[in-house]
Amino acid sequence: MSRTPITLGAIFACALGLGNAKAEIFANGRWIDLSHAFSAETIYWPTAEPFKRETVFAGTTQAGYYYSAYNFSAAEHGGTHIDAPVHFAEGQRSVDEIPVGQLIGPAAVIDVAQAGAADRDYQVTADDFKAWEAEHGRLPDGAIVLLNTGSAKCWPNREAYMGTAQRGEEAVAKLHFPGLYPEAARWLVHARAIGAIGLDTPSIDYGQSKRFESHRILFKAGVPAFENVTNLNALPATGATAIALPMKIEGGSGGPLRIVAFVPAS
Amino acid sequence: MSRTPITLGAIFACALGLGNAKAEIFANGRWIDLSHAFSAETIYWPTAEPFKRETVFAGTTQAGYYYSAYNFSAAEHGGTHIDAPVHFAEGQRSVDEIPVGQLIGPAAVIDVAQAGAADRDYQVTADDFKAWEAEHGRLPDGAIVLLNTGSAKCWPNREAYMGTAQRGEEAVAKLHFPGLYPEAARWLVHARAIGAIGLDTPSIDYGQSKRFESHRILFKAGVPAFENVTNLNALPATGATAIALPMKIEGGSGGPLRIVAFVPAS
Repeated sequence: MSRTPITLGAIFACALGLGNAKAEIFANGRWIDLSHAFSAETIYWPTAEPFKRETVFAGTTQAGYYYSAYNFSAAEHGGTHIDAPVHFAEGQRSVDEIPVGQLIGPAAVIDVAQAGAADRDYQVTADDFKAWEAEHGRLPDGAIVLLNTGSAKCWPNREAYMGTAQRGEEAVAKLHFPGLYPEAARWLVHARAIGAIGLDTPSIDYGQSKRFESHRILFKAGVPAFENVTNLNALPATGATAIALPMKIEGGSGGPLRIVAFVPAS
Repeated sequence: MSRTPITLGAIFACALGLGNAKAEIFANGRWIDLSHAFSAETIYWPTAEPFKRETVFAGTTQAGYYYSAYNFSAAEHGGTHIDAPVHFAEGQRSVDEIPVGQLIGPAAVIDVAQAGAADRDYQVTADDFKAWEAEHGRLPDGAIVLLNTGSAKCWPNREAYMGTAQRGEEAVAKLHFPGLYPEAARWLVHARAIGAIGLDTPSIDYGQSKRFESHRILFKAGVPAFENVTNLNALPATGATAIALPMKIEGGSGGPLRIVAFVPAS
């Protein structure tokens, strides 16, 4: 046998990329946490139950060792979280039913921070995606599309982030933050085959939305949305891999999401 | 330049493994969900607050579209969850502080299901790890060590899974399920450099433990534990990659964990 060891070694390492060799691949780059922590400051929809954590025990036990444990409660939709398709589409998947592989894939980061700063009612258009594609190529099948509206820098200032610090039903009309234009949602689900979409605002529809059409278009097509994502500035437009794993709430319409990205060393 | 295109192509694909090329790698294998769903059946420690989910709204809104949303509450430690080092080690990391890269790595699956079935008080020993290493090689640095005690098949039958279906303080003495022997925990933290350890029982210390020594040894060394993991039968002993992302509770001693593994096609 006269195989070329280096060539075969490299191919073999690639084929095993996520086994032993993968440890090396993951070592050669950095992890970016795209998730806000859950605390009393975590931003929720004005009408939603906020996150609460209460102490069960924290200190030295009678047996002489340290121990700490807490209980927590919240609405599903707040902080960095996922909207499962059933949130706005009857009969579609609940959060526990979304295939894991759909939530892991190449990150396509669309930078609309300038537009989002100039107009807090900005809605990302299909033209924004087409401009991105002109530079970076077609949105890959299974892409995790991440909209960087520049809003994360306002977190956790509710007024700056979402237009109002008020709570309750009457605050909803005062919400202002960027989102995804329904026509762009329609283009994504009909012309492309993405896995999921996320952004750095409280909702995939913009703050002034009354009928939540982008939610309904995406979810009817089985495409989940990630909301209140952060640190998108740390990602390249292409080349990173996003991994988004939600709390597995049986029958849940969404829930807390831990989303991270691996950026390979360039 | 007279480079060999195939060789360089393979090396290049590997270097970019988690960028564009990675999509192909992930396509060539399968995802295994190692997490139980959270529901009213989810198993918690006899003294802990169970998981509850309550409906905020589920049905057709006045505006004519479908909408569903829920609130939830629970103890941090129940169902498939992570113990952060601060759970049993003062000054060690809370769940939000654990570096993401520590929770992602090569899965080393130790099959002790036969011992766990024969003796529900079985504790995994350093010899179990040494026997595994004799067959599969040294536990890799950063490994996610997963102990398959065969207990997951009993879920969600509390009595079969953990020895008692009773709740409250008086039930604790009746707990019986396998765990990690303290001497083995000591060997792992001193002789190896793993990232984290998990198993398919309610606790990394066995059910009859009174002083939770394995918790304390691991956590003092900064090694988190995953508890109530499932589907370990679906993993090979080596070659899979585990990805474990907890809910990012600020200052939390642990919390719900979504843990999955990628098994490359053989």
